[in-house]
Parts: sequence; C-alpha cells; structure tokens
Amino acid sequence: MSKLVAVILSGCGVYDGSEIHEATAVLRSIAKLGYTYKCFAPLTKLNTVNHVTGKNDNTKRSVLEESARISRGEISPLKDLDTSKFSAVVLPGGFGAAKNLSDFAFKGTEMSVNSTLERKLNEFKNENKPIGACCIAPVILSKVFPKCKITIGNDPNVSSAIKQLGGIHEEKLETEICVDMENKFVTTPAYMRCTRIDQVFDGVDNMVKKVLELSKK
Amino acid sequence: MSKLVAVILSGCGVYDGSEIHEATAVLRSIAKLGYTYKCFAPLTKLNTVNHVTGKNDNTKRSVLEESARISRGEISPLKDLDTSKFSAVVLPGGFGAAKNLSDFAFKGTEMSVNSTLERKLNEFKNENKPIGACCIAPVILSKVFPKCKITIGNDPNVSSAIKQLGGIHEEKLETEICVDMENKFVTTPAYMRCTRIDQVFDGVDNMVKKVLELSKK
Repeated sequence: MSKLVAVILSGCGVYDGSEIHEATAVLRSIAKLGYTYKCFAPLTKLNTVNHVTGKNDNTKRSVLEESARISRGEISPLKDLDTSKFSAVVLPGGFGAAKNLSDFAFKGTEMSVNSTLERKLNEFKNENKPIGACCIAPVILSKVFPKCKITIGNDPNVSSAIKQLGGIHEEKLETEICVDMENKFVTTPAYMRCTRIDQVFDGVDNMVKKVLELSKK
Repeated sequence: MSKLVAVILSGCGVYDGSEIHEATAVLRSIAKLGYTYKCFAPLTKLNTVNHVTGKNDNTKRSVLEESARISRGEISPLKDLDTSKFSAVVLPGGFGAAKNLSDFAFKGTEMSVNSTLERKLNEFKNENKPIGACCIAPVILSKVFPKCKITIGNDPNVSSAIKQLGGIHEEKLETEICVDMENKFVTTPAYMRCTRIDQVFDGVDNMVKKVLELSKK
C-alpha cells in the first residue's frame, strides 16, 4: 500500500527558500516509511539572499528552479498538483514559506497566501487528507484555516501573530508534534525551536509518521 | 569528549555543487553522534546548472555563497581551514566534487584537484586523521593518494578511472562502507549507487560513524 505525498518547496536555502535540512528531512522520512513523494513549487521569482552575508543581493531566481536543487531535478509547478492523486501534503519551513508561499515575513498578520497554494490546501482539506508543516510554515495554515491548532515551538512574536490570525498556538518542545485531529494538521517546531540538525530530523520524523498515520489511502 | 569535524562543500545542488541530501546527511550524522561540524568551501566560481532542465545556464555563482545555503550561513573559506583543530574531514558528493573541487567531470583520468583542497587533505593524512567521502568524491582521494582503497559503489566507468589513477576500487552495496585502514579513508556509494534518499542517509551514517571511530581526539 504505497502512499503518494506532495511536498511543497519554496526555493533552496533558509534565508530565501525552503530550509534545506527540513525539506531533506521530510523527503527522507517519507521514503524511510516506504512511501513516495513528489515535489511542487510555485512559478514565481524569489529575491536572492547571499547566505554568507545574510543580505539581499538584488537578483531574482526562479522558485521552481531553485527548489529543484533539493529534489534532484524532479519537480512540477504547484498549479499542476492534482490533489486527488495524493494522500497527504507536507510544507517544510525556511523563509521561503514566509516570503514566497506567503508574505508573512513582510506583512505579519496582514499577510496573504499564494493563491494557488491556498486553493490546493483547501482541496486537501476538503478531501479529508492530512497536512503536515514545520518551522514557520504552520503560519500559512493559521491564515488559510482560522481556528486551527498548530505549533511553531515557543517563539512569542510568531505565536502571538498566530493567535491574532485566529489560530490556536500550542507550545511544543524541539521534537514534539502538535496534532489538530479535527483538521488533520500535524506541525512541529523544527528550526523555530531546534538548535541541532539531528533534532530537526527527529521532529520531522514524528510529524511525517503522524501525517501518514492519519491519511486513509 | 567533543570532536570537531570539517565538512568540505562545493556548492548547493547535485548538478553543479554538493549533493544536498548527502551533505545534509553528513551534518546530521555528525550532530547525532554528539560531535560538532564546521563547513568550508573554496573561493571559486561555479557554472550554474538549471536543475529543472539539467542545462548549464551560462551564469556563474560563488561556490562559498551557494555552499552557505546548506550550512545555514555558517561557513569559512577552505584556505582558512586549520587542520590541527579538527579530528577528521568529510567530503560529500554531487557534481561539485567533480567540477569545483576537481575537474574529473571534464577531464576524467587527466583530472587535477583544487590545490588548496589537495594541501588540506595531505595535512589531515599527515596528522593521521581519518577522511570520509561519498558518491563521486572518493575519486579525489584516488588522485591525491594513489594506491588508496575506496568505493564509489559499482559504476564501471568511474571504478575503471579509479584503477587508472592507481587506486584500488572495492565494489560495495548501497549502504555499505569501504574502509582503508592504512590511510584511514572511509567511503560509501551514496547516490552513485543508491536510488532512495533513506539509503543515502543510512550509508552516510555508517561512514561518519566509522570516521569518528578512527579519529583519535
């Protein structure tokens, strides 16, 4: 019984894309459990951040092409994601989730979510399929689905923003998960709380296991 | 007793840099065992490959800056690596090892190795410290240290090149390691043989464990 899981990427690198360790951990956890993943990313541009200086370098890169680095070339545009063929969806973190999948990094609680992503997340939800997210990505869920229960760890500013968006924030330790059984949302802090890469892998493992446990086929 | 391990990166992305899953696996294995890593990369430029099309896009990027995406910003120029402060060194694979750390991808057995890297590897070897490498990166060891024993899995062309360079190639399965006790070299096939990301993690785990077992302090 092989389940196909969609993974939504947002570039490649913590400061302007998907956090690489988190995204890699998600792919490994899915494969380790014997399931298959397919990666997707929006057809938009990102503002490139030099990861040595941490500064915007005033060039733009394709979110899809940079995300393809994490998926070793195998990737499709987010708009082509046929949710009916997937058992679940997972969103890794990194600033890409707050800059390219949404604009939370710039607008805080005045944020909006990429419209294609919003539509796809609603489809997964309407099909009663679980959604996993880690690090800053759960904020997207609190915007699209007010009143949902999520965790981003214990960051006071972000958890306060989640509450203002109408969400319920549950404080969690490094490798713990928050399960919203009603919505089938599973979230874990990852680098919003973890200080070590192996903690990120353990937390993501717990998250992906629960996501697949909650998926029906 | 905390050991410090140097990890040599060569960009960010399988086709023009460090293979992301392999590099991430190396960092996780080191942290999981309770040790600390520091990442290094040469101060050279790489020819950018579009990871969706697989084609060279005729732009150049900094190897150091792209590598910093994998290490979340924490990275130093390879020339500044003080080997006396490290217990071991590990080289992940990806085309970056064959394009940016050496020119094996272009010149085959007529290859040369980045001179700074060659000097640093010799220092580690002379200090009797273990060197770990996976995927295509072991080819660098066979160029710098002829007669060493390594594995890249079972690829006939690359194993034949290793023999022509004077090395001994040992065929290994996906997650197995090849140990050259005399030189303290530990190698594993990773994506030169693995087809699944979780196999890569298991092989790298075996490799890093053995590297740290062979290191003295």
